[in-house]
Amino acid sequence: MSLDAVLARIDAELPQATERLMDLLRIPSISTDPAFADDCRAAADWLVADLQSLGIDADSRATPGHPMVVGHGGDGGRHLLFYGHYDVQPVDPLELWDNDPFDPKVEETPTGPVIRGRGTADDKGQLMTFVEACRAWVAVHGSLPCKLTFLLEGEEESGSPSLTPFMEQNADELRADIALICDTAMFDPDTPSIVTMLRGNLTEELTITGADKDLHSGYYGGPARNPIHVLSSIISDLHDKDGRITLPGFYDAVPEISDELRAQWDGLGFDAAAFLGAVGLSEPAGETDRTPLEQIWARPTCEVNGIWGGYTGAGFKTVLPAQAHAKISFRLVGDQDPHAIRETFRTFVKDRLPSDCTVTFKGHGANPAARMSIDDPAFELARRALSPEWPNEAAYIGGGGSIPIAGHFKSILDMDSMLIGFGRDDDQIHSPNEKYHMESFHKGTRAWARVLDALSRG
Amino acid sequence: MSLDAVLARIDAELPQATERLMDLLRIPSISTDPAFADDCRAAADWLVADLQSLGIDADSRATPGHPMVVGHGGDGGRHLLFYGHYDVQPVDPLELWDNDPFDPKVEETPTGPVIRGRGTADDKGQLMTFVEACRAWVAVHGSLPCKLTFLLEGEEESGSPSLTPFMEQNADELRADIALICDTAMFDPDTPSIVTMLRGNLTEELTITGADKDLHSGYYGGPARNPIHVLSSIISDLHDKDGRITLPGFYDAVPEISDELRAQWDGLGFDAAAFLGAVGLSEPAGETDRTPLEQIWARPTCEVNGIWGGYTGAGFKTVLPAQAHAKISFRLVGDQDPHAIRETFRTFVKDRLPSDCTVTFKGHGANPAARMSIDDPAFELARRALSPEWPNEAAYIGGGGSIPIAGHFKSILDMDSMLIGFGRDDDQIHSPNEKYHMESFHKGTRAWARVLDALSRG
Repeated sequence: MSLDAVLARIDAELPQATERLMDLLRIPSISTDPAFADDCRAAADWLVADLQSLGIDADSRATPGHPMVVGHGGDGGRHLLFYGHYDVQPVDPLELWDNDPFDPKVEETPTGPVIRGRGTADDKGQLMTFVEACRAWVAVHGSLPCKLTFLLEGEEESGSPSLTPFMEQNADELRADIALICDTAMFDPDTPSIVTMLRGNLTEELTITGADKDLHSGYYGGPARNPIHVLSSIISDLHDKDGRITLPGFYDAVPEISDELRAQWDGLGFDAAAFLGAVGLSEPAGETDRTPLEQIWARPTCEVNGIWGGYTGAGFKTVLPAQAHAKISFRLVGDQDPHAIRETFRTFVKDRLPSDCTVTFKGHGANPAARMSIDDPAFELARRALSPEWPNEAAYIGGGGSIPIAGHFKSILDMDSMLIGFGRDDDQIHSPNEKYHMESFHKGTRAWARVLDALSRG
Repeated sequence: MSLDAVLARIDAELPQATERLMDLLRIPSISTDPAFADDCRAAADWLVADLQSLGIDADSRATPGHPMVVGHGGDGGRHLLFYGHYDVQPVDPLELWDNDPFDPKVEETPTGPVIRGRGTADDKGQLMTFVEACRAWVAVHGSLPCKLTFLLEGEEESGSPSLTPFMEQNADELRADIALICDTAMFDPDTPSIVTMLRGNLTEELTITGADKDLHSGYYGGPARNPIHVLSSIISDLHDKDGRITLPGFYDAVPEISDELRAQWDGLGFDAAAFLGAVGLSEPAGETDRTPLEQIWARPTCEVNGIWGGYTGAGFKTVLPAQAHAKISFRLVGDQDPHAIRETFRTFVKDRLPSDCTVTFKGHGANPAARMSIDDPAFELARRALSPEWPNEAAYIGGGGSIPIAGHFKSILDMDSMLIGFGRDDDQIHSPNEKYHMESFHKGTRAWARVLDALSRG
């Protein structure tokens, strides 16, 4: 009875809930670019005020980077910690957006209405599904369903430098029975999912320097070392012809998935051709002896995320550049140690440098992969509670992206995480024209009401 | 006697000549960037006015690009055409300049005073040595020493798109007995030089496209093709382990230098270690079985002049980019055909593309190599006239950079070119902090007076 009233309230309140999300989306909280620091603070303040309006004791905590929003409310039942992030990715290339990324709009599409704008799916739209479920619960019952702690981060898209120190310093305050993380996608639009495997991530930036100044390629081309050639050759060496990564020992801590899990994944009917076709590709890249689904969920990868050097403006300049740069990331699985792999990578690069080139490295994030234990009965309670909103039953799946927070909850707070999100693969997160389906937002909010009901009683 | 008076006038006039050069240097005539089109026009107008002040019938001629300055003056003797260019290279990276590149200054250095700023050596300072020699001649004698035609271009740094059509349309007006080109360096600061071999140049820009949008490397990394990897692999394939270029047939039209020329070059005592050491390098790159001097003067090369793709801003973005780009140039020698090599290069790239990647090419300049015939007695007259200003006798040398104009003078106007310039290898042309030695400017002006004297009488 009481759950039905909450669900009805969510349905009635959808227009207002959408407006609140729009308000939050208008704040350009790009965490990786220092020019947007004030906007990150504004987004944190917005969330503090919104949580306070639900009777939650919330505040914004300063860190060396962007603030952490912490809130406490409710009483009894399981103690749940909810995590989301209010920061967003940069928007470049801006010219590929059809509209201002920070002027969100509801747009009709062949698959129903969507909310278009930076952060709609990653992660403001997702985190607000949980907040809106709480709001409806409070409106109907006058209080939250159980003891709840909120932890809303502002540095998830920039390597979370302040996160683990903050968790360590506030471990007693943050510890709960289980964490709920809303930052993932469903397996497909009809199949809600709990992600139980997540790849880790290691990100490195490197600069290779040859000459001490840019040279004229006519006067020096030939005998003078070109650092773009050196960098290209190193990048080319990182994979062999079968798509395997060539760093020594790289696959040592990579487990094979069990036959059982493989059978379960095969049963999901993943359509690799459609997955690639949706982004204009037709030929699977990567390891030639692995299926695309296995690659994304259970295999490590190495990608160059950015490269630059020399003259890149209009026209032509026959410069022989002094430097070449790249941003390179590794997705990690199983027990791969990001710190050890960082060292292996740096050695790999140094071993390939001509004697008169130098290299400098800048380490960004480094997080191991995470695998959840689904023995905790909360997992099965949540999986069953999620199912009624969609045609298919909820599934345990893998996740290709890194959500390091799940690993930190385990290592620092000894707490398992349930990764429940309502995104879709075509949400274009990190890309121009990011969107979040209105159905994701609406059913997601309803699903959280169901999960809160199940976890607070079960 | 008369030459001595001209030389004395040049010495006396050096401060004013320097001020005139400074005026021209202050005009930011960057030809490759359309934002500076007005400045290119202003530089052309400045030169027209300056030539007119010498009694030369000069004007600025419109082209589809930047204007061509043409002037005629003098009478009798050999008919000489003088060529220089008033456009300059872009200035990025601007932060590596110690001063505003367009606010030139005379600076004391351990090797004597230099003029610092963009275009000082390439080519405004050089072209003004000839203009100042003419000015002194006119001041002393009341007229130019012989019949002179001026052709001052504004697109040399951006592939000279208007040059050959202009020469073809004005062939009768421009044809002379021989061309003088002042856009090269001396062999060393003590050895004036006439360049008799010049490498050609072929420049290509390419864009490789994979997916139809930027992707998240967590969700797509592995099975989705990364165009930066494809581009890096192609760049890496362009050279073999011995530094040779791997395009099929690339070396077919590359001649070996004669034993006589090799002996003469060996006699110059080129110090490869010092040449590389001056720019912070120690290990010769390029073809392992060729000396650095031979590589620069007589061997073709392939250099990536710019590369870019993915996220290149502050922080980190785990994007799997849709596109990767490069600007690539080839220096050509002997009878290498730039158009044939362009096609070979494009086929080489296409042959290495995965089936779901596409490539687009943008052709920039394409010029064959040039070799001068030194049988014309004007060469030996000029070589002897050049020598007295410097400790060593003037030498015939090769040039690594491309000066396509010399080839065009031959093919369109059937005219040989004498490449006489006073730059130094450390002038940092095309780089931050470009400079021109005051000695180059002063002795260069005096040397032109000597050459004009010799060629007008001989």
